[in-house]
Amino acid sequence: MKLLSADAYVDGVRAGDRAMLARTITLVESELPRHAALAQEVLTRLLPATGGSRRVGISGVPGAGKSTFIDALGMHLVKAGKRVAVLAIDPSSTVSGGSILGDKTRMARLSREEAAYIRPSPSSGTLGGVARKTRETLLLCEAAGFDVVLVETVGVGQSETVVADLVDFYLVLMLAGAGDELQGIKRGILEVADMLAINKADGDNKPRAERARSELRAALHLMRPGAEPEITTCSALEGTGIEKLWTSVETQLGRSAVSGAMERRRKAQQVQWMWSMVQDGLRAALRAHPEVSALVPTLEADVREGRATPTSAALRVLGAFLPETRA
Amino acid sequence: MKLLSADAYVDGVRAGDRAMLARTITLVESELPRHAALAQEVLTRLLPATGGSRRVGISGVPGAGKSTFIDALGMHLVKAGKRVAVLAIDPSSTVSGGSILGDKTRMARLSREEAAYIRPSPSSGTLGGVARKTRETLLLCEAAGFDVVLVETVGVGQSETVVADLVDFYLVLMLAGAGDELQGIKRGILEVADMLAINKADGDNKPRAERARSELRAALHLMRPGAEPEITTCSALEGTGIEKLWTSVETQLGRSAVSGAMERRRKAQQVQWMWSMVQDGLRAALRAHPEVSALVPTLEADVREGRATPTSAALRVLGAFLPETRA
Repeated sequence: MKLLSADAYVDGVRAGDRAMLARTITLVESELPRHAALAQEVLTRLLPATGGSRRVGISGVPGAGKSTFIDALGMHLVKAGKRVAVLAIDPSSTVSGGSILGDKTRMARLSREEAAYIRPSPSSGTLGGVARKTRETLLLCEAAGFDVVLVETVGVGQSETVVADLVDFYLVLMLAGAGDELQGIKRGILEVADMLAINKADGDNKPRAERARSELRAALHLMRPGAEPEITTCSALEGTGIEKLWTSVETQLGRSAVSGAMERRRKAQQVQWMWSMVQDGLRAALRAHPEVSALVPTLEADVREGRATPTSAALRVLGAFLPETRA
Repeated sequence: MKLLSADAYVDGVRAGDRAMLARTITLVESELPRHAALAQEVLTRLLPATGGSRRVGISGVPGAGKSTFIDALGMHLVKAGKRVAVLAIDPSSTVSGGSILGDKTRMARLSREEAAYIRPSPSSGTLGGVARKTRETLLLCEAAGFDVVLVETVGVGQSETVVADLVDFYLVLMLAGAGDELQGIKRGILEVADMLAINKADGDNKPRAERARSELRAALHLMRPGAEPEITTCSALEGTGIEKLWTSVETQLGRSAVSGAMERRRKAQQVQWMWSMVQDGLRAALRAHPEVSALVPTLEADVREGRATPTSAALRVLGAFLPETRA
């Protein structure tokens, strides 16, 4: 990658230049230490221009129709005069290598819009690394003037909770099914959702969607009494329910902006993000430590087979990693 | 605390001597580095004698009647010829200073039984520290020959998930209420519960308890389709349902022991415990690091107010803590 000056990146992003935005995202996604310093300089200078978008996370079980939904929602926003960025957090794309073509196919209409910018998930790194890159890409999109940033997650593993920690509003897409609406939804996701939308509420499926809504409402009432999220139905295919859904998202976000709740949530997210990056850095340093790596297989076997206590094994790991803490 | 020889602790515990068990637990609970080495030696020598008990976690919302329930269940076990230890994980007792008298009052009948041993929650330390002490106390109780170890948790904060990681079976006590059965139950606890018991199913309350059971069953079916835990009702006050409940626990644990699932779960728990202690140790070392402590207030304020990116702040923390990782 040929590097430009910090000025060139900063000015290009602020001018909303798509090619420069893409190059700056690539810089931020780089794992090379010599890129990292420049990336942080660019980001720090752009920080004052960030914070202006609605940050909305979208998750859902496989088959819930996320791509069609985001295509439909994005088109609705574009028609309303908004600039929309779509980011994705998909740690599994580390394996598949990601695919821009894939995203273009998935969101056929939106990908042709000048006012929309679709960026696939970073295709390398741990979940922590992918999350870091997505957070910073979100900031870059804000600095480039996007009004709405949709952060999509595939709904596997821990990626949903990571998304919840970087957005203002968390929308979970559901599917009407035979009483198994919550199947595949991971631990805790329903506790952080700000809205549930039952998609594919069209044709023969409408009564099932309504039934699913009642069942979900009852379950959510048990799970989060007094703090139930709104449950809505829509059909991304037919385009029904999307406008109503977004109006409600806007209303809730507007209220949260006025009350200061959004600002407080964002500040807390920033500090939490800093500490989770410290944790990630410590884990990486621990893994890369030669003496620790040499010890671990034996220690784990000893602990597993009851030859050593976990405490004594942990003390040996810590003693190797931080010699000054040795008792 | 006057220290004895490692032999004295090891032999005393193996002989099932209650006074020596108490002294060894006190040694294990000590935060003093010079006690830690001796404690680890004693524990390592006792490890071959551990693993023989049924480890059952008991959690529940406040008001669910945990003390009365454990008193009733403990008495049932004692009458069946079992030796029963009751441990508690209550990080809030760090504030209140804990209370042995409290536990004696709480479990009035059980505390008078020779075959029962009730140990209050360690009254100092972080949740990680409390968990470490409870895990090691559990091993000591096993080496002392207890057949069943009940680990009680107050059901606030993160203590439930900690308990789930140290027991073979997790029982969650519920209360029949006006549709708000899940109120107060923390994130994820219903996903790890092996059994739910609706307590106070007596007198006028019986129909409500049955209704709560149906509602819970529906909610659990949505949450964990195909892997719903058993839901039972009981009255600790009247002593009804306790025997049936324990028979089912025993059946499930027996099956898990025969299939090898219990052994696998325990081995995985041990390795996980080792790594969570490594994490705790790293956090403690980070907190205790003078340069890091001096940096943090400014860095957090800069991140909160958008003057620095979380990434750059995290790199500064890591650079101060692990100078060799500086780019």
